[in-house]
Amino acid sequence: MPTFTCPLPLPTRERILLAHGGGGRLTNQLLEEIFLPAFANTALEARHDGALLSVGGARLAMTTDSYVVQPLVFPGGTIGDLAVNGTVNDLAMCGARPMALSAGFILEEGLAMDTLRQVVFSMRDAAMMAHVPIVTGDTKVVDKGKGDGIFINTSGIGVVVAPGPIGPQSVRAGDVVLVSGDLGAHGIAILSVREGLQFEGPMLSDTACLWPAVEALLSAGIEIHCLRDLTRGGLSSALNEIASAAGLHIMVQEALIPVSAVVRGACELLGLDPLYVANEGRFAVFIAEKDADRALTILRAQSVSAGAVQVGMVHERKSDRSSGIVTLRSRIGGHRVLDMMSGEQLPRIC
Amino acid sequence: MPTFTCPLPLPTRERILLAHGGGGRLTNQLLEEIFLPAFANTALEARHDGALLSVGGARLAMTTDSYVVQPLVFPGGTIGDLAVNGTVNDLAMCGARPMALSAGFILEEGLAMDTLRQVVFSMRDAAMMAHVPIVTGDTKVVDKGKGDGIFINTSGIGVVVAPGPIGPQSVRAGDVVLVSGDLGAHGIAILSVREGLQFEGPMLSDTACLWPAVEALLSAGIEIHCLRDLTRGGLSSALNEIASAAGLHIMVQEALIPVSAVVRGACELLGLDPLYVANEGRFAVFIAEKDADRALTILRAQSVSAGAVQVGMVHERKSDRSSGIVTLRSRIGGHRVLDMMSGEQLPRIC
Repeated sequence: MPTFTCPLPLPTRERILLAHGGGGRLTNQLLEEIFLPAFANTALEARHDGALLSVGGARLAMTTDSYVVQPLVFPGGTIGDLAVNGTVNDLAMCGARPMALSAGFILEEGLAMDTLRQVVFSMRDAAMMAHVPIVTGDTKVVDKGKGDGIFINTSGIGVVVAPGPIGPQSVRAGDVVLVSGDLGAHGIAILSVREGLQFEGPMLSDTACLWPAVEALLSAGIEIHCLRDLTRGGLSSALNEIASAAGLHIMVQEALIPVSAVVRGACELLGLDPLYVANEGRFAVFIAEKDADRALTILRAQSVSAGAVQVGMVHERKSDRSSGIVTLRSRIGGHRVLDMMSGEQLPRIC
Repeated sequence: MPTFTCPLPLPTRERILLAHGGGGRLTNQLLEEIFLPAFANTALEARHDGALLSVGGARLAMTTDSYVVQPLVFPGGTIGDLAVNGTVNDLAMCGARPMALSAGFILEEGLAMDTLRQVVFSMRDAAMMAHVPIVTGDTKVVDKGKGDGIFINTSGIGVVVAPGPIGPQSVRAGDVVLVSGDLGAHGIAILSVREGLQFEGPMLSDTACLWPAVEALLSAGIEIHCLRDLTRGGLSSALNEIASAAGLHIMVQEALIPVSAVVRGACELLGLDPLYVANEGRFAVFIAEKDADRALTILRAQSVSAGAVQVGMVHERKSDRSSGIVTLRSRIGGHRVLDMMSGEQLPRIC
């Protein structure tokens, strides 16, 4: 009788590229080929910013992010407040009130203690602003040349307060797409330091806690279909993930997308598209068209989303292809497909 | 009228040393001088392996750990199963049933995809063994030479099932100290690879999930006063932390502490003290003396704690000094103070 053995996969010569961490196509490939098959479970497969869990009778959201931004201190923030705001925002994007954060530090031997102090104190300030305690932590030190100053992981748990499911599965044709403010400030602030660029005005990161904006929408009874913060890969990658998961067509209008003159100028100079540049205090929200005006009024009353505008709408796919698509109507009236970022535009932006 | 300004602390020339991550005296100093003042809150100040929280009506424990062990693959495990077991064990040490883990990867550009696969699949196996899903994740990539292959952060949440408070504050004079098995295997397994040592028998890491042992004690109604896994800094550092927090005197007997002949031999060769070597599948438990025999029987029925023994007892401090102390009664009858590890014995052991 023949025996059947399950052969181990042959060794490959594939290696990790910077773009595997960029939030675009290669990150998705890594997720689909390695992480999802290994860790298969319903919470992970939802592929949202956080996982929804029922624990001890409570409806919880849980999320994690590691921060590797360079430089550690940049105009408008540090790796520390970024690590607090980014994880708090992932909870907010689940419709969950942030309740507690953990902080895991990987320090490089030789790091100046004063740099650590500055980063830790900016974490403290961001946590106080967000009203979220840092309840547990861990510190590891790696040999000089095996790290890069400071890496921080923050994980968070929150209590889900949104009544309905928030995610791509709730997006419907006819929904409007709002964004909470002008795009690209974080990415350009980081790049300005790296490249030694000077601007006429101050070019600060938009890093901020988004929960007050989400809470205001929920408190007013706005039925939120989907939320997504516009981090790695920017607006384009976020919309592509949602369109793809929902199997719908998202159409945005270039003329409606808010980009400041400074960011637009810097992007032209550097050959970047602001729709792919990372933000750390901006999000997109999908709601029914009937709620659009009221939602915009509510968002504009919160300082973190004072610049909220409608940028597009959701449509059925015209063809019978089930996959989603994002298109951009340009200022001169043409249409083009807005693809997911395939490479790494700005490595280590968060 | 004079004005008072709060001066910024003067810049110092202090720098981070490897020993700041070693789990001993310098780690404690970092905690006391930087992290605790910044993040002050009751959960963090408990300084346990995890934080206890009441969230949405549920009694939860939350914990985080980053793993930077080298090599990534070692006899008996990988950084992946270590990252699962270590964090699950921190929850178990809070008397909490592990419910969900997050996984945050920091990958170095150029990492072989096959190494990542091996590590991720060993995480999967460890998570399945521990019956805990990995529900959310994140991947970042840093430039070649700015990381070290793979760093992993795992954070976890669990539901507290222990009826009473578990921690140094519950330890009483008259309690017995049990350890769950022989000490030092993880540290020596790692070191054997680094130093190219050969042993007669296999020298495998003890990395394992401790929850079944804790659950068995709780299910049997044993009143657990304190639990501590014996990771960085080994048995000595763990006992010192507890003695210090409880303000009591812990006395252990050298002849009762289980150390295998292979570990003892390797420690002698390398000039290490097995009481300071890291374990990844061993813990100490403090209970009333009346429960000792029953607890040992229960522990020995679980494979992960089959080698459980009593190693010492807790006493009042004789002097009027309020700080705790740990002493060792040696084989020949002498007594010496077992201090907290002050340097870094084995860097990057977990």
